[in-house]
Amino acid sequence: MPPGAPSRPSFEFDAATHVRPRGDGVSFDLDIDEGWTVGLKPNGGYLLAAIARAVGDALGVADSPHRDPLAATAHFLWAPDPGPAAVMVEVLRVGHGASQARASLLQGDRACVEAAFTMGLLPAEPPPPWWSDRELFTVPPRSECIRLPAAREGAPFEVPIMARTDLRLDPASLGFTRGELSGRADLRGWVSFADDRPVDPLALLFFLDALPPATFGLAFTGWVPTLSLTAYVRACPAPGPLRIRQTAHSIDDHRVDEVCEIWDSTDRLVGQATQLAAIRIPEGADPPT
Amino acid sequence: MPPGAPSRPSFEFDAATHVRPRGDGVSFDLDIDEGWTVGLKPNGGYLLAAIARAVGDALGVADSPHRDPLAATAHFLWAPDPGPAAVMVEVLRVGHGASQARASLLQGDRACVEAAFTMGLLPAEPPPPWWSDRELFTVPPRSECIRLPAAREGAPFEVPIMARTDLRLDPASLGFTRGELSGRADLRGWVSFADDRPVDPLALLFFLDALPPATFGLAFTGWVPTLSLTAYVRACPAPGPLRIRQTAHSIDDHRVDEVCEIWDSTDRLVGQATQLAAIRIPEGADPPT
Repeated sequence: MPPGAPSRPSFEFDAATHVRPRGDGVSFDLDIDEGWTVGLKPNGGYLLAAIARAVGDALGVADSPHRDPLAATAHFLWAPDPGPAAVMVEVLRVGHGASQARASLLQGDRACVEAAFTMGLLPAEPPPPWWSDRELFTVPPRSECIRLPAAREGAPFEVPIMARTDLRLDPASLGFTRGELSGRADLRGWVSFADDRPVDPLALLFFLDALPPATFGLAFTGWVPTLSLTAYVRACPAPGPLRIRQTAHSIDDHRVDEVCEIWDSTDRLVGQATQLAAIRIPEGADPPT
Repeated sequence: MPPGAPSRPSFEFDAATHVRPRGDGVSFDLDIDEGWTVGLKPNGGYLLAAIARAVGDALGVADSPHRDPLAATAHFLWAPDPGPAAVMVEVLRVGHGASQARASLLQGDRACVEAAFTMGLLPAEPPPPWWSDRELFTVPPRSECIRLPAAREGAPFEVPIMARTDLRLDPASLGFTRGELSGRADLRGWVSFADDRPVDPLALLFFLDALPPATFGLAFTGWVPTLSLTAYVRACPAPGPLRIRQTAHSIDDHRVDEVCEIWDSTDRLVGQATQLAAIRIPEGADPPT
């Protein structure tokens, strides 16, 4: 931080994921911010990003420079409330190219999130990938996409993260906001921070879990709580707008798998995630054909 | 076990994943079996299955009936050797429909695998999925596929798990065994146990990490060690042969993501996995076009 800079982070995401070391190198205090919630509960990707920040700090204390999450996994146990929480890190291995750690987020004496990380250092200006068979999805220009608001008429609850996230969805993805079932589990759009904070690997962890459930196009359900989330950060995003897509694939025995991918302005895949979530299909609801 | 049955499990997989409780409900001894290795090191999916068995036992002690892994994640820290190891379980939450736990596998005082699980009970005869947009891949009939042996001429090391696994690969997937680059990262085939053990959710955890790296069709590399593995078990497989496919998608900054899927004889997706692995592309090697 330059001399004279304020001690509080100047971007909302940094303030909300700020962790205060307790002095032992592995324990941190976190204030879960009420602005980073879906309904009354904090977003899972936001919690994962805050935990990853603590893990990077703990690795720094352990003389590892590995601050970037390469692979992050989280199992969600209890949804904490906004307010004080603790992140307890256990450094598992400090290596040359990557280091590994686990961490738990607790509120009071209740474990809320159990996470594990493979951390490394991603180059700021990466050379192109050696090979990929993934194809960038199509999405209308950002100017033709529609920003998802934090509060909208008819919604069962507010989604405060959408005041901090500038998420613009393809109009074809927006049927759920009008109470329509599209028959498709495919949300596409553009994502950035509302305050224009640059997107780094920590921010990707948040964005990879920031979209509404892709299943909203298939059935009228309540929220679709994540059981287990896995995110890979493949590269530091280049400056410029990011494209994001979330899809769902199989609904079986009250669980659904969803996939999220984020591409940067150079048409590079920079982040990808898969999650298993619980879903309660209303009795008698027919699947799309 | 019926009266008079031997106290040792009668199938190889059960013997190799057998864990002995130390009496505190959360600590277990495991003998890492030299028959479940790739080269000299145990297969990661085999270790994950053994850890999941200990977690199911620990949940049983904690009065949870949840013995089936719904979602399992593992970060691999150090490759242990065959021989004595310990599995230490921490039950995180015992719930109504699912329970959660973390576990670590240690050899001596070295942490080797850090894993976390969302566990549940999968119905033995599940109703069909409510919805899926996944399509079953094509693969030649099992009789036209070729069994991958544990030892083959020209291979840099033996793969003992292939003596215990009956993995029959599509001839189109087998170029790597002849030192040919197919230009594709797509292995397809049929999988079962060589001793005909029925396939249950624990066995799926093993099979989901049992295939050779799909990248063997793209470049001549050494082994492609898994950093982080995520497996979802979607249903108990119906009796009969299983189809399996492993693909790789992006090689970027010395890491590759691979996806594995397993379908049962009723054309149902029963298991899926994603992993991030380290890969060392030889200098000057060109990617397939």
